Amino acid sequence: MTLVVQKFGGTSVGTPERMRRVAERIVATADTGATVCVVVSAMGHTTDELLDLAAQVSSRPQPRELDMLLTAGERISMALLAMAIGDLGRDAVSFTGSQAGIVTDTQHGKAKILEVRVDRVREALDQGRIAIVAGFQGVSTDANVTTLGRGGSDTTAVAMAAALGADVCEIYTDVEGVFSADPRVVPAARKLPVVSYEEMLELSSAGAKVLALRSVEYARTHGVRIHVRSTFTETEGTWVVEEAEMLEQAIVSGIASDKGEAKVTMVGVPDHPGIAGRLFRPLADGGIHIDMIVQNVSAAGFTDISFTLPKAELGTADPILRELAEQIGASGHQVDEDIGKLSVVGAGMRSHPGVAAAMFEALADAGINIEIISTSPIRISCVVRAGELDRAVEVVHERFRLTEEVLLQSDEFGASPRS
Amino acid sequence: MTLVVQKFGGTSVGTPERMRRVAERIVATADTGATVCVVVSAMGHTTDELLDLAAQVSSRPQPRELDMLLTAGERISMALLAMAIGDLGRDAVSFTGSQAGIVTDTQHGKAKILEVRVDRVREALDQGRIAIVAGFQGVSTDANVTTLGRGGSDTTAVAMAAALGADVCEIYTDVEGVFSADPRVVPAARKLPVVSYEEMLELSSAGAKVLALRSVEYARTHGVRIHVRSTFTETEGTWVVEEAEMLEQAIVSGIASDKGEAKVTMVGVPDHPGIAGRLFRPLADGGIHIDMIVQNVSAAGFTDISFTLPKAELGTADPILRELAEQIGASGHQVDEDIGKLSVVGAGMRSHPGVAAAMFEALADAGINIEIISTSPIRISCVVRAGELDRAVEVVHERFRLTEEVLLQSDEFGASPRS
Repeated sequence: MTLVVQKFGGTSVGTPERMRRVAERIVATADTGATVCVVVSAMGHTTDELLDLAAQVSSRPQPRELDMLLTAGERISMALLAMAIGDLGRDAVSFTGSQAGIVTDTQHGKAKILEVRVDRVREALDQGRIAIVAGFQGVSTDANVTTLGRGGSDTTAVAMAAALGADVCEIYTDVEGVFSADPRVVPAARKLPVVSYEEMLELSSAGAKVLALRSVEYARTHGVRIHVRSTFTETEGTWVVEEAEMLEQAIVSGIASDKGEAKVTMVGVPDHPGIAGRLFRPLADGGIHIDMIVQNVSAAGFTDISFTLPKAELGTADPILRELAEQIGASGHQVDEDIGKLSVVGAGMRSHPGVAAAMFEALADAGINIEIISTSPIRISCVVRAGELDRAVEVVHERFRLTEEVLLQSDEFGASPRS
Repeated sequence: MTLVVQKFGGTSVGTPERMRRVAERIVATADTGATVCVVVSAMGHTTDELLDLAAQVSSRPQPRELDMLLTAGERISMALLAMAIGDLGRDAVSFTGSQAGIVTDTQHGKAKILEVRVDRVREALDQGRIAIVAGFQGVSTDANVTTLGRGGSDTTAVAMAAALGADVCEIYTDVEGVFSADPRVVPAARKLPVVSYEEMLELSSAGAKVLALRSVEYARTHGVRIHVRSTFTETEGTWVVEEAEMLEQAIVSGIASDKGEAKVTMVGVPDHPGIAGRLFRPLADGGIHIDMIVQNVSAAGFTDISFTLPKAELGTADPILRELAEQIGASGHQVDEDIGKLSVVGAGMRSHPGVAAAMFEALADAGINIEIISTSPIRISCVVRAGELDRAVEVVHERFRLTEEVLLQSDEFGASPRS
């Protein structure tokens, strides 16, 4: 018998009316004879409203209490969803993270799942009931309530799917799947029928919002097949699977773009060996996520080092950078928030070295200057001016003809198909 | 060291600002050196809002899911209160009913406390922390989340006080204590410095809203001293203690009034032995709370039987009454919702038989007709027309001179002080 895990986000259950529609969708799946376990997020803006209340009573809420507070959100949505399903004549039962056996470490606000003790949920499923599990939350090894941080509900869904040995983990969202580029930027963007875990990891870390990075990592590690699809339509979405499962390999699958980063330049750094380590160790210890790094050619024993980091972390990074500049004898640091990053991702580019050149040419033809470049075996990222980002995505999308499905046979980007 | 349990209701923590004021109050108690365990209800109208959401997704929500939903309310308030206390520089930690070890039976919506496993809360208190416990909720013996029903938070507070061996259980409310009558009806009503458990039980069951009946029962059984007092002032409230602890015994302590009941009359009942049992057994089985019963003098082998029950239960009672009338051969039943009940309560009246007579005289002098009378050793209740209830309370309050403190020595209501 098919076992399906379905995850619905906050927008999908944002109002009682939407909640009822989601309930109908779940019951329709159960009516096919499938065993269904649902993971649900807090309704719409609940989390923001709770954070607002917290800010009104405390300037620095204790992380444990913040987790206690926020987990009220899924408690509300899961109970309501179980009721809505019950109202359709199906037996549903809700489980908190703790009841569902989501055991985490003790890091409040960003806990990691250590183990899923799935017995209680499995028992409910075996009884023919629909199990509704709270996303985003768990219970720590010291018996406190924890939350998993950003993208936590996706991770809960994948973890439940892994623990239950589900045939598929369906992630319902407000878009129809993973696209070759953001459809708001490139209206002709094409929905990708299938991407590999590696491609999805690169897309997610490069700014694609559709799936949380850590849920994809968890899926890859545990071999969970993900199906990203729309809450509001019946059409097939995008499958995220093992590369080996894919019949054909696109050279370039999609383009992700990101305006959430800033560029920091440390100016006038004495060019000694080991200087980069001295620069980035304190930032790493401060929990700052450094992405791209470029070091300029040294002149007269001094150099400039630029790197990107999330804008949201600038406040934390600033005092560290000030102290660093003094310690290493640099002139100071400059912050540039007016940048954008586009990334081209495709598992097939491993065997097609011409992809980078084609991307740079497309940008040059459009008169767009590239400020930083970084690459992985299946990704090429460029930083450009923020104001030019959308056009950069468009011209690169056009260059790789991502709108067309015929791309797979193309060998114009150099070299031979992989052996 | 003094150990205090403090309970704050929904109104006391209805807004973030009030929450902060309650936090200050708790910290002030802790600053005296006392160990403090706090029990808190859901904020203001949270419970009603959650019930409204439930009604929008289901016509008949499963009781288990309703409990799951409603318990989100205290989760929010307890976490916020812990944060507000933390913001004042004190260490506070919140506990759900389950974490606090409130183990109940499996009756969702009206669970009974079976046991309090207080180790985790005690450990927090021993570490010098302020423990915040969710009122109204527990965990059942089959590991589901339960709620305790009406007055549940008062009961949680008393149960925690009993389990911790607290010196006092302070119930904070929006009035200053227990009064000799409702101050909105009798402005001269006097705050009672002390009442016995038995008196408080009678007052609560006769309609006084200040303390939930079952919390008083729990306190009596476990010998928990209750102090009912105002959230908004510093003045002493009313102590509820063992009768033996009271130095003096008031003949009449207070008057409770209640407009929440209706009178039902079963008309033309054949007057056989056993007919009352046949009448009231099906009502009891239907969960109907019958209060006062009066059977008229039989005439020609037929009689009328009147009784009172909560107006809220009329809907459930009606079909049972229809079927009953047919079964026992009565002509039918009449419902009168236009009644009010006043009850005079005082532990001292056991030894002063003149109290009932004085009460009836006072009502007669005011031209108020008594429709039903019932008594216990320390209570006399009368049903009057709803429109005459407030005046009835006033004249009886006046007759027993409850405004004055000198009442204790009075023997004008007959017989001698108890031996």
